[in-house]
Amino acid sequence: MYSHEIESLLKSKKIRIGDKVLITRGKSEYAGILMPRIKLGDMSSLVIKLPNGYNIGIKHEKDTKIRRLEPGRPIRFKPAEDAPRKDPEKHTVSILGCGGTIASRVEYTTGAVYPAFSPADLLLSFPELADIANIKSRKLFDLLSEDMAPEHWKSIAQEVVKEMQSGVDGIVLMHGTDTLHYTAAALSFMLRDLPVPVVLVGAQRSSDRGSSDNLVNLVSAVVAAAQSSVAEVTVCMHGSMSDDFCYLHQATKVRKLHSSRRDAFQSVNVKPYAKIFYPDKKIEYLRNDYRIREKRTVKLDDKLDTNVALVYAYPGIKPEFIQSLRNFDGIVIAGTGLGHVPTNPTGDKFTQSLLPAIRNLIHSNIPVVVAPQTIYGRLDLNVYESGRMLNEIGVIGDGCDWTPETCLVKLMLALAKSKDMGKIREFMLTNIAGEISDRTVI
Amino acid sequence: MYSHEIESLLKSKKIRIGDKVLITRGKSEYAGILMPRIKLGDMSSLVIKLPNGYNIGIKHEKDTKIRRLEPGRPIRFKPAEDAPRKDPEKHTVSILGCGGTIASRVEYTTGAVYPAFSPADLLLSFPELADIANIKSRKLFDLLSEDMAPEHWKSIAQEVVKEMQSGVDGIVLMHGTDTLHYTAAALSFMLRDLPVPVVLVGAQRSSDRGSSDNLVNLVSAVVAAAQSSVAEVTVCMHGSMSDDFCYLHQATKVRKLHSSRRDAFQSVNVKPYAKIFYPDKKIEYLRNDYRIREKRTVKLDDKLDTNVALVYAYPGIKPEFIQSLRNFDGIVIAGTGLGHVPTNPTGDKFTQSLLPAIRNLIHSNIPVVVAPQTIYGRLDLNVYESGRMLNEIGVIGDGCDWTPETCLVKLMLALAKSKDMGKIREFMLTNIAGEISDRTVI
Repeated sequence: MYSHEIESLLKSKKIRIGDKVLITRGKSEYAGILMPRIKLGDMSSLVIKLPNGYNIGIKHEKDTKIRRLEPGRPIRFKPAEDAPRKDPEKHTVSILGCGGTIASRVEYTTGAVYPAFSPADLLLSFPELADIANIKSRKLFDLLSEDMAPEHWKSIAQEVVKEMQSGVDGIVLMHGTDTLHYTAAALSFMLRDLPVPVVLVGAQRSSDRGSSDNLVNLVSAVVAAAQSSVAEVTVCMHGSMSDDFCYLHQATKVRKLHSSRRDAFQSVNVKPYAKIFYPDKKIEYLRNDYRIREKRTVKLDDKLDTNVALVYAYPGIKPEFIQSLRNFDGIVIAGTGLGHVPTNPTGDKFTQSLLPAIRNLIHSNIPVVVAPQTIYGRLDLNVYESGRMLNEIGVIGDGCDWTPETCLVKLMLALAKSKDMGKIREFMLTNIAGEISDRTVI
Repeated sequence: MYSHEIESLLKSKKIRIGDKVLITRGKSEYAGILMPRIKLGDMSSLVIKLPNGYNIGIKHEKDTKIRRLEPGRPIRFKPAEDAPRKDPEKHTVSILGCGGTIASRVEYTTGAVYPAFSPADLLLSFPELADIANIKSRKLFDLLSEDMAPEHWKSIAQEVVKEMQSGVDGIVLMHGTDTLHYTAAALSFMLRDLPVPVVLVGAQRSSDRGSSDNLVNLVSAVVAAAQSSVAEVTVCMHGSMSDDFCYLHQATKVRKLHSSRRDAFQSVNVKPYAKIFYPDKKIEYLRNDYRIREKRTVKLDDKLDTNVALVYAYPGIKPEFIQSLRNFDGIVIAGTGLGHVPTNPTGDKFTQSLLPAIRNLIHSNIPVVVAPQTIYGRLDLNVYESGRMLNEIGVIGDGCDWTPETCLVKLMLALAKSKDMGKIREFMLTNIAGEISDRTVI
């Protein structure tokens, strides 16, 4: 809703949401489609969608004038018939909606975005899908991915198992991108012995932007789910800034590495499993170390202890900060370089060692795990004194090349299995879902 | 020192540190140079340096045998004459040692690493330096960079000002790599109006490894300090996995992005200023938006409030964790995507919003700043509801593309200048040292 003042102005001029308008303020002119006011925005600004797809807000002040250029033409969606006919020649893919802008349709007149989760809606928005597979779909929930909590991972894992029991040939999960890689890592650990592909997909640009990546990503994900032999949890996202191909990433080794680019998701320390070419729907495999699609029964391992902290090590970090983490069941520290924190072996007067605080946590049976703040590369706690000291007091992580995010998720699983420090260490250092890649000689 | 048992064994066989030995245990054989036992290691393991340069430890057990293959030949360093003659045709570069393995010489027989900070030692290790510039050098301190504290940044900044007052044409700072980018960012904010280049340099591989990058990096850094026109704080490190060139990075926009590779340092969201080609010592400029070398007086701005926390936002993060940060003077949150944290506008039962906890901090005059967890890309708190809600309660960072590390350092400066929330916001959002790059159209 706009402010009372703006609403009155619009009413007096018979301007409606969706009309093409010209707003002038002082010497500036803005032409665009009048948008509905967003829930939490400044109610005293008019919002219009510019021809380039961006929305801008224009403060309504004394000298602001608005006039209608063209009336809007509200479009009524004509839903396609539901339950499209099944083609026995094609694999069946189940698309489950978890939120995000990937599966949305835009009412172009008003710019409003509607979720599109029914098979009919999906096929109306993305008719190409019908050429690739028989599509089933349903919505699990509709969340901004920054709001995704570990309980949602469980619920997704359980629903995936149900879908598999119903006999589909692949599953696509539509998900927001902010925490897509956390969910992907969680599902990798929770869903063991997958018989068919489970592909997470998102969109970096919403479908009301000309540059939206939702079509290419979703179609490629369905190709991967229906046709690839990679019976693993994977992430399918744009491989370049063009619309030519997507990468199929290993779920424990992928990370969102750009806030807005369409190729934001990158494999870390490994190659992606495959490239999916959008124009001809072909798959080029880049690795062969994956579980092959085959009839077997998925195992669900969905217990989590979410009372876990992920913190950074940085110059000036205070031992008291580490001590204050004693109410957590486990700690991941994103350490510098090969996995370091300040340890001050030379007794420098300015440096505060974190060693006593970390030792206290470990003595209280709170496992402390390191992950690389550098993102790329492997930890090695045997090269420098700082690392050796951490190794010696029982910090976990030597030799691992996990991302901080995957490490955090794995620790949640480890803590749910046992509170025994030896068992936690053993679980953490055992490669479960490719999160610790084979040591490569550089 | 080795364990008493090993020491006795070695004595009985007249084997000394530095001898080439063959160790057999069961069916395994290891040949290498016997190394001195490291300070904190397991004293009951023998350590040898393999021909490939790596050290390994072999547990001394009942079936462990050792015999000498070749006696070691201890090398005595013959220090060069001190104070090499000054060439009036060349610029003078001051090399200041802050630690790290960049400036070390190895006694190849024992593998022991000696710091090499005197001009004589440096020129003995790196004779090429004399062809590039007149070299002055001194050691400020000798710290592992993971132990570098904000107080050290101040001390380095003050020493750099002193060196400039003595009239040098460029300064090179030898520094460990773990936190080199934090120090570099700090110096960028602290040293304003630089007349000459200040170049930080490190080595990813110590000089006892065949693959050490110390020669190429140090020589390139001295080239940049002596000959480049970039009167900025910069970082000079390997640009590729070969020894062909180094990049000269903008100090506020560079980050260690690999734990071990020689090209670990990468510019984020900008191009490096220049390439320095090692073989012919040529400089190729990639940008032209830098302060030109010119006679002017450097300004020192070295006040810091280091009571600052840097934390990650992640699924399952608890509001109590954010509340527990109320004893800090300022908080940086590495948010997901465009700068998000869980805000739960839809009232999901599993999601805990951080919004009330963050609002409480801000109401207590503790500034909360966001930085991108994605590392690459720019924050935008106007696209999604979560961002708008954060913007509305006064979280700082909309439109910024700083790294979490640079953001942390800048907040330390901001808090030292004022405790007024408006002034802190203004300082943070003002581009001081290129930490917020111009918005580029993607």
